[in-house]
Amino acid sequence: MKHTAVDVIRTKRDGDVLSDAQIDWVIDAYTRGEVADEQMSALAMAVFLNGMTFEETARWTQAMIDSGERLSWPVPTVDKHSTGGVGDKITLPLAALVATCGVAVPQLSGRGLGHTGGTLDKLESIPGWRAQLSTEEIRAQLSDVGAVVCAPTTGLAPADRKLYALRDVTATVECVPLIASSIMSKKIAEGAGALVLDVKVGSGAFMRSIEDARELAKALVAIGVAHGQKVSALLTDMSVPLGRAVGNAVEVAEAVDVLRGGGPSDVVELTVALASEMLSLAGVSADPATVLASGAAYETWEKMISAQGGDPSAELPSPKHVHVVAAPRDGVLTRLDALGVGVAAWRLGAGRARKEDPVQAAAGIICHAKPGDVVTAGEPLLELHTDTPDAVDGALASLDGAYEIGDEAAARDGLVIEVVRG
Amino acid sequence: MKHTAVDVIRTKRDGDVLSDAQIDWVIDAYTRGEVADEQMSALAMAVFLNGMTFEETARWTQAMIDSGERLSWPVPTVDKHSTGGVGDKITLPLAALVATCGVAVPQLSGRGLGHTGGTLDKLESIPGWRAQLSTEEIRAQLSDVGAVVCAPTTGLAPADRKLYALRDVTATVECVPLIASSIMSKKIAEGAGALVLDVKVGSGAFMRSIEDARELAKALVAIGVAHGQKVSALLTDMSVPLGRAVGNAVEVAEAVDVLRGGGPSDVVELTVALASEMLSLAGVSADPATVLASGAAYETWEKMISAQGGDPSAELPSPKHVHVVAAPRDGVLTRLDALGVGVAAWRLGAGRARKEDPVQAAAGIICHAKPGDVVTAGEPLLELHTDTPDAVDGALASLDGAYEIGDEAAARDGLVIEVVRG
Repeated sequence: MKHTAVDVIRTKRDGDVLSDAQIDWVIDAYTRGEVADEQMSALAMAVFLNGMTFEETARWTQAMIDSGERLSWPVPTVDKHSTGGVGDKITLPLAALVATCGVAVPQLSGRGLGHTGGTLDKLESIPGWRAQLSTEEIRAQLSDVGAVVCAPTTGLAPADRKLYALRDVTATVECVPLIASSIMSKKIAEGAGALVLDVKVGSGAFMRSIEDARELAKALVAIGVAHGQKVSALLTDMSVPLGRAVGNAVEVAEAVDVLRGGGPSDVVELTVALASEMLSLAGVSADPATVLASGAAYETWEKMISAQGGDPSAELPSPKHVHVVAAPRDGVLTRLDALGVGVAAWRLGAGRARKEDPVQAAAGIICHAKPGDVVTAGEPLLELHTDTPDAVDGALASLDGAYEIGDEAAARDGLVIEVVRG
Repeated sequence: MKHTAVDVIRTKRDGDVLSDAQIDWVIDAYTRGEVADEQMSALAMAVFLNGMTFEETARWTQAMIDSGERLSWPVPTVDKHSTGGVGDKITLPLAALVATCGVAVPQLSGRGLGHTGGTLDKLESIPGWRAQLSTEEIRAQLSDVGAVVCAPTTGLAPADRKLYALRDVTATVECVPLIASSIMSKKIAEGAGALVLDVKVGSGAFMRSIEDARELAKALVAIGVAHGQKVSALLTDMSVPLGRAVGNAVEVAEAVDVLRGGGPSDVVELTVALASEMLSLAGVSADPATVLASGAAYETWEKMISAQGGDPSAELPSPKHVHVVAAPRDGVLTRLDALGVGVAAWRLGAGRARKEDPVQAAAGIICHAKPGDVVTAGEPLLELHTDTPDAVDGALASLDGAYEIGDEAAARDGLVIEVVRG
């Protein structure tokens, strides 16, 4: 049967289930340019409003995987994907830690858009470090060092790359079947032996409610299982920034502290939780908490950065301008909103508004206090870093109401809210 | 406030009501190319699935009117618009008849797409006749002859022209708010003093059920009233082709028969009904049935065709190939399906599959019997005209099951089902 874009759109528009053949055709034809952007965006809106069954979503994922190459690795591997948060530098210590524990990590990462940061943007604040590697370079580094964090190779799920850019400009982003198929098509095509998903929930995350995050986590895991992928998902809190540093170079510095056995307790907690799940899926018994505390993972980090041209001992860029927000009163910090801080860091220059914009390596925010910490009137609460002082007013506006100081600290729950296993 | 396409799409996607400012901005920005096709198609799908209120539809119509020029005429005018049917040549006798009765008719018409024919395609089968007139030529012809049937000037509702082409390829056509705003923006911009809408219902029409057709008719009339337009809508039957001729030249010939006081009774009935409504809205008392029967309107027709370069006495093109379908048995024709006949005529070459395709002037179908007529086995029932004999098989396939012969004629209702007045 000859398919047409109008027939496929009409099927979903009318609330019917797309056939396997329709999905295969429309993804392939869109990749080739036979289905136009305006047709795919109408289909994406119909999917947004009428949904897709699990079977449709799994097939859609497969079709996007099939639109490009599928990688494989010379050694056992495990991968992690985060749905994005504020201060989420976990990939940096995690990749080195898991590799140190004996399982290679091919971490093909993204750049930031909007208020959530991008791993590649952070690493590019290290002098000399380069994100773009060939598949052969990735394979060699996996064998030699055990950990690679780099840009995806261009042949991976090209249908997803096109569709992702389209969804961004057509208000069709926040849709579980489209998010789940986008993430899983890339991750399955990347060919890691096992995969752990960090599904963020809270003000600084894409998913604001636990129910939505759980729905996404279950969809991701179910698609993985359907494709024979070993997979788990952790629902983790993103209502407060992770760690004390939000930005690019400042996050690298914090990751290095963690790799040397120090650093903020929440970053350590989440790094260890994700490493444990990854190692467990990979069938390796190791004690990542002890390995991390020992500082052994820092040696892997040095090799990982050097292998990609970076100088791990080089000084990181410092900002031209620092603005300090002092605590307005004595007390205990009771709230520090991830979204407010994330948007402030973005406005300071740590993130980008459009894909083609550059980011400032030195821009970001240092949180001198986290919820539960005692603060003193007049002492620094937040430190705003930027090369463009004009940006400070916008950042301050975003921080307005983003923190509260009270008299008593509330108990904080652990970061990991629940685990969904395949 | 600065609008963005994503904000506007999101509003409608989430089931909210678009503000006047959002509608004004998005239609203007789309016309200028600032809102891209893929954004407008996502919005159109969100409108398709979540609807628009009457107020939104009226504002959307106004914004599309405001995207271009608004015409005005030197004499009192009245216009007619049909939602499209099979054998619907009514504009041809109607324009000449109403002008003969004393009210000028500026009929800016379209071309056929799919199985419904286009008035301009039909008239172009007259040797020398041209569809494209300047506004000045239209004004002069209205004053001199009283009737013009021609192509819309390019400055009319450019937003609608862009959106209409987009909806065609994105499965967002069958949506009352988008249909109603499209029709009314063009018709109001055309500036006639009064407007009668012929909303077709039945297998050969866009609206298959009376409920859907009534909803559209009411929306059209309400938008007209909101814009101060004198307007009525007739719901008319389109389950059987109008008249005996379906195609281009064959429909012109039938229209001429009607203008000379003869022709099929259903064509006469609908022409008179629409003329009566038009004259009544224009405040002119006349008896169009008597005028039509007198043949006086034929003189107006001759002037109207001549004024646009056509030779009203020239022989019309005849087909290279004629295929006759004979009645398989004696009896009474009990059914002749408009859609089956319309698709057959289209496949014979009378219509086009894509906007850029040419049509065959001589292609079409002559129905030797209409429902209620006695037929004799072996005598011609349908006559297929084409210049491309290869097309006959496809046309016959479409006619398969499109007619039935029984023993008794069922009573036929009148063509006008109901009238919606402003």
